[in-house]
Amino acid sequence: MTLAPAPRARTSTHLSTDHDFPGDSVPNTITAARDIRPAAPSAGVLTPLGLTESRLADTGFWGLRARVNADATLTHCLDWQERAGWLANFDAVAAGEDGATRNGREFSDSEAYKLLEAYCWENATHPSDELEAVIRSLTARIAAAQASDGYLNTNFDRPGGAARYTDLEWGHELYNYGHLLQAAVARIRTHGDDDELVTLARRVADHVCDTFGDDGIRSVCGHPEIEVGLMEFARATGEERYREQARLFIERRGHGVLADIEWGRSYYQDDIPVREATVLRGHAVRALYLAASVVDLAVETDDAELLAIAETQWENTVARRTYVTGGMGSHHQDEAFGDDFVLPSDRAYCESCAGIASVMFSWRLLLATGKARYADLIERTLFNIVATAPSEDGRSFFYSNTLHRRSPGAATDPDVQSKRADSSQRAAWFDVSCCPNNLARTFASLGGYLATADASGVQIHQFADAVIDVPLEAGRLVVELATRYPDDGEIALTVRSAPGAAATIAVRVPEWAAGATLEVDGVASPVEPGYASVTRDFAEGDVIVLRLPLDVRIVRADARIDAVNGQVAVERGPLVYALESVDLPAGAHVDDVVVDPSSVPRIEGDVIVLDGALETAADGHWPYGSDVGAAERVPLAVPLVPYHRWAERGPATMRIWLRTA
Amino acid sequence: MTLAPAPRARTSTHLSTDHDFPGDSVPNTITAARDIRPAAPSAGVLTPLGLTESRLADTGFWGLRARVNADATLTHCLDWQERAGWLANFDAVAAGEDGATRNGREFSDSEAYKLLEAYCWENATHPSDELEAVIRSLTARIAAAQASDGYLNTNFDRPGGAARYTDLEWGHELYNYGHLLQAAVARIRTHGDDDELVTLARRVADHVCDTFGDDGIRSVCGHPEIEVGLMEFARATGEERYREQARLFIERRGHGVLADIEWGRSYYQDDIPVREATVLRGHAVRALYLAASVVDLAVETDDAELLAIAETQWENTVARRTYVTGGMGSHHQDEAFGDDFVLPSDRAYCESCAGIASVMFSWRLLLATGKARYADLIERTLFNIVATAPSEDGRSFFYSNTLHRRSPGAATDPDVQSKRADSSQRAAWFDVSCCPNNLARTFASLGGYLATADASGVQIHQFADAVIDVPLEAGRLVVELATRYPDDGEIALTVRSAPGAAATIAVRVPEWAAGATLEVDGVASPVEPGYASVTRDFAEGDVIVLRLPLDVRIVRADARIDAVNGQVAVERGPLVYALESVDLPAGAHVDDVVVDPSSVPRIEGDVIVLDGALETAADGHWPYGSDVGAAERVPLAVPLVPYHRWAERGPATMRIWLRTA
Repeated sequence: MTLAPAPRARTSTHLSTDHDFPGDSVPNTITAARDIRPAAPSAGVLTPLGLTESRLADTGFWGLRARVNADATLTHCLDWQERAGWLANFDAVAAGEDGATRNGREFSDSEAYKLLEAYCWENATHPSDELEAVIRSLTARIAAAQASDGYLNTNFDRPGGAARYTDLEWGHELYNYGHLLQAAVARIRTHGDDDELVTLARRVADHVCDTFGDDGIRSVCGHPEIEVGLMEFARATGEERYREQARLFIERRGHGVLADIEWGRSYYQDDIPVREATVLRGHAVRALYLAASVVDLAVETDDAELLAIAETQWENTVARRTYVTGGMGSHHQDEAFGDDFVLPSDRAYCESCAGIASVMFSWRLLLATGKARYADLIERTLFNIVATAPSEDGRSFFYSNTLHRRSPGAATDPDVQSKRADSSQRAAWFDVSCCPNNLARTFASLGGYLATADASGVQIHQFADAVIDVPLEAGRLVVELATRYPDDGEIALTVRSAPGAAATIAVRVPEWAAGATLEVDGVASPVEPGYASVTRDFAEGDVIVLRLPLDVRIVRADARIDAVNGQVAVERGPLVYALESVDLPAGAHVDDVVVDPSSVPRIEGDVIVLDGALETAADGHWPYGSDVGAAERVPLAVPLVPYHRWAERGPATMRIWLRTA
Repeated sequence: MTLAPAPRARTSTHLSTDHDFPGDSVPNTITAARDIRPAAPSAGVLTPLGLTESRLADTGFWGLRARVNADATLTHCLDWQERAGWLANFDAVAAGEDGATRNGREFSDSEAYKLLEAYCWENATHPSDELEAVIRSLTARIAAAQASDGYLNTNFDRPGGAARYTDLEWGHELYNYGHLLQAAVARIRTHGDDDELVTLARRVADHVCDTFGDDGIRSVCGHPEIEVGLMEFARATGEERYREQARLFIERRGHGVLADIEWGRSYYQDDIPVREATVLRGHAVRALYLAASVVDLAVETDDAELLAIAETQWENTVARRTYVTGGMGSHHQDEAFGDDFVLPSDRAYCESCAGIASVMFSWRLLLATGKARYADLIERTLFNIVATAPSEDGRSFFYSNTLHRRSPGAATDPDVQSKRADSSQRAAWFDVSCCPNNLARTFASLGGYLATADASGVQIHQFADAVIDVPLEAGRLVVELATRYPDDGEIALTVRSAPGAAATIAVRVPEWAAGATLEVDGVASPVEPGYASVTRDFAEGDVIVLRLPLDVRIVRADARIDAVNGQVAVERGPLVYALESVDLPAGAHVDDVVVDPSSVPRIEGDVIVLDGALETAADGHWPYGSDVGAAERVPLAVPLVPYHRWAERGPATMRIWLRTA
């Protein structure tokens, strides 16, 4: 910890840095503006802010992406759901039709719910009649499909079809509800609870409690999500019954209540009770949604032991089962985590939804504990998974975010539903389109992840053009963030309104940012990774400038990650870089390139150039021996682009981890 | 090429070595004994021998395994098929029952056929009433299930069930037939064609031709196998119609006649016409069975262009898509080949059946071309996949043969059907039990892969205790092979009967055997990899000794195989070695071991010991950075065992590719 004396005369200024944000868990206070947030734990070291309290500007890296999301992705997803007939499924149920001509996969209902959630959040920060009309129209179609007892699903319980809850392993009925409840949470928090969506969601939640309570079906859904949905719905409605049902689902899991399958019950986390598990395993999205709900349960029930379990699971998962991009999931087969250190670049799965779920999990741990490492992983995941998945125009998406693309694949057809992992190119839509809709709701609520508050002031976790406007006891503290981050490491925090009493502004110094400084009143002091905080009686116009060194970092991996043994990855700021074949001499493959890790990187715009060489491999008839790999090398300047912007220039090969000369 | 003058006075002796066995393709001659062989192309550079002409002894590496197969595996497989109710499926069809209580997967019929084939081959080399009784009993049950028009399947066409040929993508009906035809081929060649199995197979084959001919269903089976079955059945019966039907299936494929699926039509080789493909792709077993049939088609139709295509596919597959063990298939998801150089050790699939299918493909190319490389790969695959899959007692099996096992998994229960890839331990049986039955038929016919003949003499391709007894024009040439290979590099060939005229004995010198010598009349001459041949007027008692140097070889991989970058594998003779955690200090993981590739290997029995160290990894919270992997090292003698005998001492971690210090 460093302490810098205050140079200003008016009041004392206290500058401190600590690895984590210090603080005890305290009850959160609620205001109308604060209510507009994706997750609202009732206690925690840090209190999340509402989307209008922590308002993302329309500029900068994230602001522009949020606008593309609002302007393009929302309608893109709505149009595709209509076109694919997934919304018409609700109409068909309302009309009493059987399911013979039903469209889409068994979980397609959830895409309408994720998208509805996105519309609700967007309508809070950029309200419009058009957004409201979509929300009401979607809600009406969904409501018409609801059964009199609250059941709601377009795939089961239709005339002549499979009965409800007859396939909990794969049916996704409760998973769908979870997303519906999250949409209703967004509606409550952005609009109020006198609303058709809220009403139908209450009926669903009550139906779930009636059906899956202690006296009901003592099982769980193959795909966790209902847990985190019920948890948040309980918070939004104040109904403890919903939280109790979530608890039941969480505690039931892991005792083999679901059928064993080829990949084992670990696939859906039904192998080990959550309190006994030490690492995430199985299907990555399932594991992460469940983990997020576990943090919720720990916080709501003041269960420190369970919170510690969740932290241990996070630690082991991050130390042994996470890609350098923050991506999670290394199996294509079951979209799952591999064993420790099974992190092959070329078979990385890193589902976009797993990145989003990872942010949800880390965010809840950050709120509960105030530890910087959770915000660090959120940043890494946002810049390298969440920002990578959508195209610049917001109309095509990666479902999986590989770290090494060996074959370019074909250009994708914007009018065709694509497979999940068969091209280097983003696709307009997938048969399984969780990712586009999940991205839509994430970008629409992104401001909520930038900052938090506590009684003493605000904490800035992510850097973006934004205005943080928080009522403290003594008065409003308004801080404007302005930055060209990640192109530039300077983040300026300008106080636009001060409470008139001592307050604290804390700002995260990323773990990679050795050499960072914090300037207060024109005096820069070194700050360590963690949170640097300035405590004083702020005045309007006060400026704090965080400067993060954006030196190029050449990183290696733990030797047990065999897949990248002897290779290096290049990072700068929060960004991971990649080599893409479109930047190589014609015909060259990224696998033919080696770099000199000791070379001095050159920065040219957003491109990093390393010294290296292009190899002409000596192809043999057998690729193993004492003298394989003898190859001719021609010197080459190796240009690397930010990973998040790869694959925008046509089919290409790509790799993040580079072979060394 | 080296030429050594003949030291013997009696006749001139001509010793030559060439990379490949020289010769033109000639028509094969058939004798009763010669007929007993799995594949009998009508032409080729080399002529395969019958199982009683090329008779594997009951001793030595392969002889003992063949006895374990006969004494344990055959009845093990029969018992499990009965116990799992797969054989009862035939009885149920015969009884006219519907399929509601059918047991097993859609392709379980094929396991009865593979096993029947195994019994037929075994009954040729070690005939017994018991074997014959099983053959007749199985045949009778199968025959009773055949429909009047020849259709035969226990999964389709049953009262109230799915109609025949309504799911060519996944139904496996034609795949099953392919194995039935191969069983019938074995019956014809070991017993004659006046037999119930042969009769029912003819009815199946005729039914297939009637149904899938030019005027019939113009499609193919999702799983190739019918092609190679029809090809061989045509050879065994002389019915050109069957060959023509095989040709239709082969040529139809690759034009998108099957449905597109998540993994693409490449999964079942329906993406590219076989004449346009340059490498094997998709599901490995499917690709390799198809490739074997393509060689058959090329040979039977004297299509040199098609043969060259098959050779190119083999070359590219071996150079870029094959593991050091000879294993093929690096995807768990679709049991498929990956892109070029996607060969991760820890996600290696290397299905046992793919190894067997690879031997079938290479064997056909060897017969057609006489090129040593095909025999080299067969040897590598036999010793490191086929010998690895079954346990020493022949009652448990690997379905997939990984090169790196990161977690030990659990002990397998000999009374439980296991999953395909969830433990380090071999399993007694699988829901998908192709591998045990495929291994059974392969071990039962192994002698057929040891040697070939041509007009001038014999060619020894694989080394095992065996007697090669071949009628040449001038008389019988009988050569006895005696060896402790692969424990010892000396292979003695003793002439037990000589034809009384000049003849040639050729013997393969493996590609890895630099420094090999061939001793004739007590004089050793250096021989190069390829085939070394001795031509002379042999006399009874003549001895030729091939000496292969069994130096330990430290090999590296093509740098484009990222997964093993900077690592080494250890080979000796035909064997690949592995590090198994049961040989490490208690609690140590194979991933914590590094070896010094420059150390002098010590050979202790069948164990190779390298100098190395045990690392205590410095676990961090994030496995990437500029200083990760700083670890304490304690010197360690690193013992390696032959890969084929790993996993016999309880659950363990294992790796073939070793990190280097």
